[in-house]
Amino acid sequence: MSYEYERVATPANGLRLHLNENTAGCSPAVIDAIRGLTREQIAEYPDYEAVNAAAAARLHTSADSLLLTNGLDEGILVASMVALRATRGDGEGIVVVPAFDMYAACTDALGGRVIQVPLGEEFEFPLEPVLRAITDRTRIVWLTNPNNPTGQSIPREAIARVAATAGHAIVFVDEAYADFGGTTLIGDALLRQQPNVIVGRTFAKAYGLAGIRAGAVIGDPATIASLRRVAPPYGLNVCAAAALPPAFHDRAYYDWYVDQVAQSREMLYAGFDRLGVRFWKSDANFVLANFEGRGSAIASALAARGVHVRDRSNDPGCADCLRVTAGVADHTGQFLAALEAVL
Amino acid sequence: MSYEYERVATPANGLRLHLNENTAGCSPAVIDAIRGLTREQIAEYPDYEAVNAAAAARLHTSADSLLLTNGLDEGILVASMVALRATRGDGEGIVVVPAFDMYAACTDALGGRVIQVPLGEEFEFPLEPVLRAITDRTRIVWLTNPNNPTGQSIPREAIARVAATAGHAIVFVDEAYADFGGTTLIGDALLRQQPNVIVGRTFAKAYGLAGIRAGAVIGDPATIASLRRVAPPYGLNVCAAAALPPAFHDRAYYDWYVDQVAQSREMLYAGFDRLGVRFWKSDANFVLANFEGRGSAIASALAARGVHVRDRSNDPGCADCLRVTAGVADHTGQFLAALEAVL
Repeated sequence: MSYEYERVATPANGLRLHLNENTAGCSPAVIDAIRGLTREQIAEYPDYEAVNAAAAARLHTSADSLLLTNGLDEGILVASMVALRATRGDGEGIVVVPAFDMYAACTDALGGRVIQVPLGEEFEFPLEPVLRAITDRTRIVWLTNPNNPTGQSIPREAIARVAATAGHAIVFVDEAYADFGGTTLIGDALLRQQPNVIVGRTFAKAYGLAGIRAGAVIGDPATIASLRRVAPPYGLNVCAAAALPPAFHDRAYYDWYVDQVAQSREMLYAGFDRLGVRFWKSDANFVLANFEGRGSAIASALAARGVHVRDRSNDPGCADCLRVTAGVADHTGQFLAALEAVL
Repeated sequence: MSYEYERVATPANGLRLHLNENTAGCSPAVIDAIRGLTREQIAEYPDYEAVNAAAAARLHTSADSLLLTNGLDEGILVASMVALRATRGDGEGIVVVPAFDMYAACTDALGGRVIQVPLGEEFEFPLEPVLRAITDRTRIVWLTNPNNPTGQSIPREAIARVAATAGHAIVFVDEAYADFGGTTLIGDALLRQQPNVIVGRTFAKAYGLAGIRAGAVIGDPATIASLRRVAPPYGLNVCAAAALPPAFHDRAYYDWYVDQVAQSREMLYAGFDRLGVRFWKSDANFVLANFEGRGSAIASALAARGVHVRDRSNDPGCADCLRVTAGVADHTGQFLAALEAVL
């Protein structure tokens, strides 16, 4: 079996609700910072001192507990490198599925065996099956909190159990969507007690910076140092380095967008209820819904109307499921109108 | 032994002749393109169709022979991943030293053993020693043409011999500085005859885009497909995707800068001759010089005057050698004046 990131076609136009992007666009303060870059700054290798300090302050952590990366994808890759480096080909990575493609793709690309553990019937976190899957060969355990594509959170106690049981492995807790769910391990005592736990964050979603590629991994300073050692030295580009401090400073924009997402989720719940569509309440900026027997057909019909959602039908346990980004409330209203017309 | 990229401190101000950057800054057309990006474009995952086509056209290759990367560093990393994936820890990477740190750092980070082969006494390419170092365990051979930090080119026939002898391994020909030397394997029949050869290029130097991170790997479509499979799907940021087409279009800027570099090299040769400093003629945008017994002291004295050069004293065969970027002729004049004062 080959594991690979599924590259999604980019629609030329229409409403992009298929990649969990920020549908409002970034803060105007970010655009100003990027427009202020000089010809010389574009030509020089970036300096990260200011952006590292700003990110550490925003995430309430120390600079040596943090590595900024070229999107969280690069963080996932370097964590995989460190985890699987010394395995001589017999290392394993545990992926709780359905999940973001990159966990299995990176585990496999670095010579690790991918061990899939399915979520429960209602997408609940499968704590006992994960604990049973952990062996001497386990080198990395991939958790997503909240999960993508289900939007479900993992109880803190379950993460702590996994971290303790897999103390010889890296436990990567991907918090890409944590801005919308409210809970994080950053600042939690668990990160000190279990230096094998790494938290992944992205600034793509709540800050609207997917295009300029900015993510972070956070954890015990010694663990982060091991990632820093193998990460390309200039992973973060100068536009990202310039954009992050003003993005962090514009709290009004951030708060507004997180609130739009919360409103959009409620609109989706109400709309799906009204239309008789089964869905799962979400802690993220998307909602998964089951269109029983018609998932792919409805995705195509929506696309024909210029509304792009993500067909997750082929994901384990997700037959007929579509994932809809919850972004700006007005966009969510457009989606619901299109869905009603299609149904 | 641990192999790691040596992170160089960023001087707060002064003349940056220590990182082989473009000392003029990027084309004004690039700044215009970056300033034209919208809030929505910053927030969306980039689309690469236009930039892939523009890069393929500029490099006279096909889109399926090309992978754009987050700086050439990411190309070096994904080539290492592909080369060393199935080695169960007994793979080797051959590095001709002195060389760019990333070859050994990536080989080591991916569990490969680093086999160093030194350049000759006068930095000539050590063909026979490289051929002798190739074994069944060889998974990747790192060549740099022209070499960094020596500026010396490798004869095409030597590369062809290495590629044929290491037919079971990847031969990575890093052409980061080829814009200034004139020879390239892109379009050469060797790339068709030897699908194990990958060419690396960067747009950091001649185009002045180091800050926005844009590189490329070029080779046989099947080989490039194997790299594309493991590369992060959104490695290139939207600013780079927007910047490259106008950078390629502004041929007047490119030609002017390459000419400035050529002028600067001649100025450095004449200056070093006049001051009695031994140097090596270079095909790149830098010149290596030997300050017999005083290399590090002179680098410090230059830095105190705000002129930053790269001390390569600790590189194999480079005792007392400093590497000076050859960029804008006026900057080179400032360096020579400072050097004369220091000596």
